[in-house]
Amino acid sequence: MSFISNLITVIKEKKSVVCMGLDPQLEGVNRIPECLIEQYNNPNDIILNFNKELIEKTYDLIPIIKPQIAFYEKYDALNALKETIKFAHKKDLLVLLDSKRNDIGATSEAYAFSNYEVFNADACTINAYLGYDCIKPFLQYENKGKFILVKTSNPSSKDFQDLFSLNLENISNEEYEIAIDKLNPDLKLKRNYIQMAELIQKWGVNLERYNDYHNLGIVAGATFPEELKILRKIVKNSFILIPGFGAQGATAKDVKYGFNQEGLGAIVNSSRGITYAYVNNKFKPEKFADAAKNEIKRMNLEIKKEINL
Amino acid sequence: MSFISNLITVIKEKKSVVCMGLDPQLEGVNRIPECLIEQYNNPNDIILNFNKELIEKTYDLIPIIKPQIAFYEKYDALNALKETIKFAHKKDLLVLLDSKRNDIGATSEAYAFSNYEVFNADACTINAYLGYDCIKPFLQYENKGKFILVKTSNPSSKDFQDLFSLNLENISNEEYEIAIDKLNPDLKLKRNYIQMAELIQKWGVNLERYNDYHNLGIVAGATFPEELKILRKIVKNSFILIPGFGAQGATAKDVKYGFNQEGLGAIVNSSRGITYAYVNNKFKPEKFADAAKNEIKRMNLEIKKEINL
Repeated sequence: MSFISNLITVIKEKKSVVCMGLDPQLEGVNRIPECLIEQYNNPNDIILNFNKELIEKTYDLIPIIKPQIAFYEKYDALNALKETIKFAHKKDLLVLLDSKRNDIGATSEAYAFSNYEVFNADACTINAYLGYDCIKPFLQYENKGKFILVKTSNPSSKDFQDLFSLNLENISNEEYEIAIDKLNPDLKLKRNYIQMAELIQKWGVNLERYNDYHNLGIVAGATFPEELKILRKIVKNSFILIPGFGAQGATAKDVKYGFNQEGLGAIVNSSRGITYAYVNNKFKPEKFADAAKNEIKRMNLEIKKEINL
Repeated sequence: MSFISNLITVIKEKKSVVCMGLDPQLEGVNRIPECLIEQYNNPNDIILNFNKELIEKTYDLIPIIKPQIAFYEKYDALNALKETIKFAHKKDLLVLLDSKRNDIGATSEAYAFSNYEVFNADACTINAYLGYDCIKPFLQYENKGKFILVKTSNPSSKDFQDLFSLNLENISNEEYEIAIDKLNPDLKLKRNYIQMAELIQKWGVNLERYNDYHNLGIVAGATFPEELKILRKIVKNSFILIPGFGAQGATAKDVKYGFNQEGLGAIVNSSRGITYAYVNNKFKPEKFADAAKNEIKRMNLEIKKEINL
């Protein structure tokens, strides 16, 4: 079964577009409660039990989870990642592995294999700075989901993604000078993130669609609602993974531009805001999963005021 | 000790700028010889023994190795990666982990930790599409090396990296129309890879230098010698990791532009071309390490005809 058709089905069933990000941390303010850290004596067990309790309590309220592989690498706890994905699948949750992998040829094939086969993720994130060579091996897995970075939620995404660029296809270095001469107000300069979105739209044009959407999605941060509005029109057939809700400051009003009139077209991720909700509210640390459930309900209600799901 | 000062020291000692890429594969034409696959019964042992034999035979001819983490992920053999790095360090080799990680905030911190602390790499590759937020946590590890993707060696690197872009710093959406009006032949449009290189030059401007070089390097493919020549002038203080030699078709004449007059400024990677040299020459499969040694000698001689090391 295709990732996107499964996703749309569960979104409609559960009436929720909330994606729970699983970014396990053992130190800092936002972290796994002490009681769990004391109960289990290694990162793999601590993280797996934290994730399982979160999933057990919330699986009927969310269509999908998004583990961020960096944290599992940090704690040498890739086994916890694998077991978390297995457990999530048992609960009929979809799994989007946030890995932002990027390479070419056999290396990119190896990454696609590792994301989809070793970790058994239903979808993953990709960085396409390297161009089509990078995403081709992922597209070979027709039924799996891909979300390519376009406009990320961080402040310095402007450094590069917001530069104005001009697509003068296949121009040679020798033609460079001529191109400069041709520049005039009629030439449409576009920011890099727009160029990236247009590439993705082109790459996805022949992919099979379900409810108008195919398996090649994009990432666009809720922290940039104006850009999200523009992107929604360019990648008409792409689901948008929207990070930046909650902890990074974006609200339901900011994410609404990602959705169509039936409330489809995007999923909204919150990681710290959900899993460490216990830190900032009335729940005791040992009730972290109840705090997460509570936050998901709140977040979902807030979003559904803005979209027609 | 700083990565770059160590690198320069061993380059001078060994009179070699060859980087051996360790991309273990168990299937296809370019793969680990059958005899090793039969001798050991799991990917971790097969890969580790392959790598150890290669390192044992070649460590005195190369300053650095570059394991590509994707293949270790593919075979669920991250333990082989860790043990390979440990073994390489015992042989006084530097290790550049090719991971192309990219993220923001706590996630980017987790990746930096995993590359430098969990795997204990001396340097790693980074994709900076997300801007400065992405590389900042890596820069916190002052003594470690970082190589940011600029112009990659693959054909479709043109898709995005070769677009012409214009850095109109901090321009707002409202100012967009005005910017278009201002366009005239005097405005210098630059390709994206040039913009990326200029960002990196700026990010590295205050870093400590050894022999004119700091720990913030770039990646620029040997398959694009003209671009390499241009980049060498922009990132004056960056070492360049040059992939694309050998299997991807580039020669010593193509890589020479990465070097200064003392033969410093770059390392030249070959992966398949070295480790699977036995496939295309007179060596028997069980003599793969001798074939690799032979190829490194040949490659180093060829490069040294073009640079003054």
